[in-house]
This record gives sequence, structure tokens and C-alpha cells, in this order.
Amino acid sequence: MGRLTGRDPSLLRRINSTVVLRALRAADGTPTLSDLVQATELSRPTVEGVVEQLVAAGLAAEATGGPGDVRRQGRPARRYRFRAEAGHSLGVEIGPHRVAAVLADLSGRRLGTAEREVSASAPAEERLERTRSTVAELLRLCGVSHGTLRAVGVGSPGIVEADGTVRLCTALPGWTGLPLGERLRHSFRCPVLVENDANAAVLAEHWKGAAVGSDDVVFVLAGLSPGAGSLIGGRLHRGFGGAAGEIGALHLLGREAAPEHLLSTTGEPLHPLDEAAVAEVFALARGGDERARQAVDRFLRRLVHDVAALVLALDPELVVVGGWAAGLDGVLAPLRRELERYCLRPPLVELSRLGADAIATGALRLALDRVEEELFTVEDADAR
Amino acid sequence: MGRLTGRDPSLLRRINSTVVLRALRAADGTPTLSDLVQATELSRPTVEGVVEQLVAAGLAAEATGGPGDVRRQGRPARRYRFRAEAGHSLGVEIGPHRVAAVLADLSGRRLGTAEREVSASAPAEERLERTRSTVAELLRLCGVSHGTLRAVGVGSPGIVEADGTVRLCTALPGWTGLPLGERLRHSFRCPVLVENDANAAVLAEHWKGAAVGSDDVVFVLAGLSPGAGSLIGGRLHRGFGGAAGEIGALHLLGREAAPEHLLSTTGEPLHPLDEAAVAEVFALARGGDERARQAVDRFLRRLVHDVAALVLALDPELVVVGGWAAGLDGVLAPLRRELERYCLRPPLVELSRLGADAIATGALRLALDRVEEELFTVEDADAR
Repeated sequence: MGRLTGRDPSLLRRINSTVVLRALRAADGTPTLSDLVQATELSRPTVEGVVEQLVAAGLAAEATGGPGDVRRQGRPARRYRFRAEAGHSLGVEIGPHRVAAVLADLSGRRLGTAEREVSASAPAEERLERTRSTVAELLRLCGVSHGTLRAVGVGSPGIVEADGTVRLCTALPGWTGLPLGERLRHSFRCPVLVENDANAAVLAEHWKGAAVGSDDVVFVLAGLSPGAGSLIGGRLHRGFGGAAGEIGALHLLGREAAPEHLLSTTGEPLHPLDEAAVAEVFALARGGDERARQAVDRFLRRLVHDVAALVLALDPELVVVGGWAAGLDGVLAPLRRELERYCLRPPLVELSRLGADAIATGALRLALDRVEEELFTVEDADAR
Repeated sequence: MGRLTGRDPSLLRRINSTVVLRALRAADGTPTLSDLVQATELSRPTVEGVVEQLVAAGLAAEATGGPGDVRRQGRPARRYRFRAEAGHSLGVEIGPHRVAAVLADLSGRRLGTAEREVSASAPAEERLERTRSTVAELLRLCGVSHGTLRAVGVGSPGIVEADGTVRLCTALPGWTGLPLGERLRHSFRCPVLVENDANAAVLAEHWKGAAVGSDDVVFVLAGLSPGAGSLIGGRLHRGFGGAAGEIGALHLLGREAAPEHLLSTTGEPLHPLDEAAVAEVFALARGGDERARQAVDRFLRRLVHDVAALVLALDPELVVVGGWAAGLDGVLAPLRRELERYCLRPPLVELSRLGADAIATGALRLALDRVEEELFTVEDADAR
């Protein structure tokens, strides 16, 4: 880390504060002032002053009950710890069938989750109210006050603008045009970051799922109509207008049948959000029903085609298949087989490790990133 | 630009040299030492020393015949100019039917071009020899010696590794596995940068074609089997294995017909590289031949589908259509119409402005980037 002899004392104070807070968080156990002086290479008076400020701000506390450490005078040196409980981040999934939320402290440790069902036909206001009440319930269960929320991440279907407005969403009634970020900022009184659900999910799989260690990833949220979220070089690829990965529209071209027709065994299309009807078709197919088997085959062929289009366009290292289709038998084998046959350099194909948790977990990651940027990053202080 | 008081005198000398050379290149007309002192904010003795070194290295020269500028003593001050002729960059296209090359000086000014036909069935050695002789002819025509080449860029079909080895290429015989970069570095005795042809073309359109000012661009090199090059945030997106944009393989899935079948009017497929046969089908269609019209319609539907897959995956601001299909009537209208119908946020669609020049021009841009990085960039001296 470069030492600065800047002319702006408030910037310098802020950098020093960040450096000490980072050292405090990274420390094994509870460091003394001497430990922090050593870790930060700052002067002892500077570290002392910063620690005082951090204690006053509630971000640090004197640790009690640590291992004894005797100074020359015989008095034990004070030890300090990062107060991860000083603030909280929230990840929220708002989907067609449910609202889910996960709460974490400043260190990213999960404190609890809550989930509530909501009707696919529920109007926007009802879905927003369900979101608020689910969050309120979670905070109450965890004994955390509303006022300590520092950032909320939200994953939701549709194309989402940078300011959190939903530009287009066909899956949720009343969602298109909704200023979702603004509405929730009003409720939560802290920064709210809204992201497309598949985009949130790819962040989650990269953080603690099937894509740990891979920076070039396509996550396919495979339902009747698949969407995708992509990391390129470890960063989310949203596209010029936030619509990257909306591959589900591909079947609309060339007069090809929509997935809800492909999966039908009756000639009548399934409802695009009717997961029970879909599960039944898959169960029939497993039971040997020939018509259902053909329907599943058609559906998988379509999915393979859409994933292949994503893979050919982006050339990722890894494809992660999530969404409800990931839970079905026999999704992985045809995907791997066809991609190996036709892609010039086939990617690895894995199932989601986070399953139904992926979207809320990715939304939590977004919120944590925001908080960490605020608390632990000063651009000029970072050695890059 | 930050002033450095570093401890490494050779780094400091190099930074000062870069700063002065940049000022010299950027100057209107022919600056005096005083002009350079003012532009660089370096001391006069430093600028004097650097200019002497640049003159000795051939990168600067005393300008003659500039406007008079009389110093107090009455002797006119010396004026200097950047010697753009001190070095050259070369852009080369190696394609199925031809080899083309474009030569530029250090300022990027084009000095000349050369082009030679080559048979689609020519073995790799013949194609390489044709490349060398085309370049030799161009250098001779421009009166430029081989020794002044500072970098060569090459655009060629196929998947190209970072070291310039062709991993896979179905369009050129003997090309798969060829260490193209190494072979040409041997011939040209300077850095050789090999890039996929569509990737080179998108750089060219961004530099001086249809994509000037757009940083999120998909360039479709539309022939019988389309390939694509993409810029994301102004940077080339190569993909994890250099295969991004190879969308031509999509038709292999789902047992769909290949383009050479789609365009056939006889039941027998066309040869994928037989441009004359393709042109004939299009001419017949324009003349009202119903079978040819249907074939062209099938071909365009296929192209629309492939481009839509790229657009849905990447969500670019702009699609540029190049390659020989761009010269055909009626490519743009169905593309725009179908993308507007089915893409959630349809991109702009334009034809290539560079036409047949796109690949060699993009290869030149690669070479110029390399030379400019060498001559004009010192990481620490750049204010970012």
C-alpha cells in the first residue's frame, strides 16, 4: 500500500480509517493497538486516534475475554474487534411465486432467511407489500432493527434500469415501468440495488456456488423460458440496455414453437408459470408415457439450442444451469453432449449449487459489495 | 500528469522521453523547445536533453521552412517535428480468396495498400508465401524498407490463441494448428499480432467505420456461415477460449439445414466458399426466379436468427453487418424488422462502411496500438 503525503487532511483521515478498519476485520482474533500498528504501518498515535473514532462510530469495540497480553508495565494491552453487528445487509428475491429474503451482518455472515408465497397473478402493490412484510418478519426474527440496514439488494425478473426501474417484465403483473428501486428505498431508507434475477444468481454462484473460481460464466435460469446472467472477466455483463442474456425470446423467431407448446401433451399450451403442470409432464415422462417423453425431449432440445446460442456468442469457461429446470432429471447430459458436438470449444456445464437460494444470495452479494465499498475502499489507498 | 520524483533514473528518463514525444506528436505545426517546455511542464534542460536523444534515435528531426520565430538574440529558435516516417505498421488480411495488406506510418497515416488473389484450396505454405510476397510488393511500392516495420497485425478466419497459433479454422486448408504468429514473426522480424478476422473487423469499424462512437458493438461477418466480433465497453470480447462470436455453428444444432443447403436451388448444397455461385442465386432471385427467391429468403431467415442470438446474448448498442452478404440487396430490412419484433431492446443495425477493407484495417489498428503503447505510453506517467 502506497504511503500518501497528500494535502487533503480529511481524505487522509478517511484513508487511515479505512486501512485500520480493514486490518481490524482481517485480523485473527482480537488485535492490540500494537498489532494494528504493525499491520497498517501507520504511526501509533494515528492508529490510536482512528480506533477511538471507530469505537465512537460503533464500528469497533474493545474486546473482552481475549487471551492475556502483558505490557511492560504489567497492565494487559487493550484488544479490539470489528463490530460486524453494527450494520446489516439484506438480499431479497421477488419472484412470480414467492418472496425470499436473507439477512447478513457487516462481515457477510448470514443471520437468517425468510420466505413467503405470493400468487403469480398478484398485482404489483400486493407483491411489494409481501416483500416489506417478509423483510419485517425476518428482521424481527433476527432481533435486528430496521435502522441498521446499510444496503438492500433485490433480484427480480425483467430488464432493470441502472436506477432500479423495471423497464420490461412479462413474468410479474404490473412490474413493467415500476420504479422498484425508488419504492423500496422509500420503505427501507437505505441504498437499494435492483438487479435482474439471473444476473443476481450468477453473482451468487460465483460467490459461493458452482462458479467459485471461474470469472467467465453464463448462468442459465432455466424455466419454460430461459434467461441468463453472465460474468465476463469476473464482472457482470448487463449489456448496453440491461437486456443481455434474455435468450428466451429466441424461439419467437423463425416461427418456432414456444416452450409452453413444446412441453404440452394435450395440444393446448401449458401456462408459462404453471410449474405444477410442468412437473407433471416430467413425472409422466419418467413413468414411461410416450407423449410426455416426446414433450420433454422437445423441451430439452429447445433449452440446448438456447444455451448453445449463449455459449457461441460469449464463449464462457463455465455454464451453470439453475432455475426449476435444473431440478429435473436429465438436463445436464444432453446439454453437455450437444455442446461438445457443436461448440468449437465446449464449456464446462454444472448444475447450480445454490438452487432456490441463488437469487436472494446474489442480491445479498450486491448489497454487501455496496457496504464494503463504503466501509473498506478508498480508491487512492488501494494497491492495484 | 503527475510529476514524479522517483528513485529510478532510467524510468524517469523514459517517462520524460515519452512525455516530450507525445507533446511533439500532438503539437500543431513545429514546436520550439520553449513550446515543448510549456506543453510538458518539464525543465528546459530536461526537454533539451530528451529532444537530442529523440533526434539521435530518429524519432524527431529539426523542422525546416517553418514560420520564423526570432529570439531576443535575433537568431531564429530551432523548431522540431515528430518523424512519423521513422517506423511503419502493417495490417494484413489472410482470407480464403485473397491476401490484402495496408501500410501506415507512425502517425497512422495510410501509405498504400496491396491485394493478391489466392485459391480457396491453396495449402498453408502457398498462402503464407502469398502473404510475404504481397507485403514485399507493398513495401517496394511505398519505398519503405523492411527494417522500419515496428509491428504487424494479421486478421484471419478461425479461433486464434493469444500467441498467434490458429487453434481451429475450417475455412483455410492447413490452417488449424498453424503457429501463424511465430511463422510471420520469423519473416517480418517484429511483433506480429494475429486476431480472428471478425474481431479485427469490429476494431476497424470502431476506429473509422460504422461504429465510431459506439463502444458496445457486434460486427457480423456475414457469409454463408456467419462469424462475429464484439466490443464490450470499447474492448474486444474474445471469450474464455478466443471463440466468442462463432455463431455459425448454431445451425448444426437441432438438425437444422446448413446455409449452403438453404441457399441451394438444385437440391445439391453450394460449396461454402463459392461466392460466385451464391451471387448467382441472389441475381436469379432479383430477376424473379421463384426458387432462387425462396432460397434467398431461407438464407436471410437463418442470418436473422443467428444475429438475434448474438443480440439477445450480448445486448449491444449497434450491430454492423459486413462480409460479402452485406453487399447483397435486402439484408438490412429483414434484420431490422425481425430484431424490432423480438428483441426486448432492439439495437441499431448498420452496414459496414469499410467493406472489403475492414479486416486489414482492423489488423492495422492492432499493430498501431502496439506501436503507440511502446512509444507513447508509460503507465506511471499517465493520468487516469
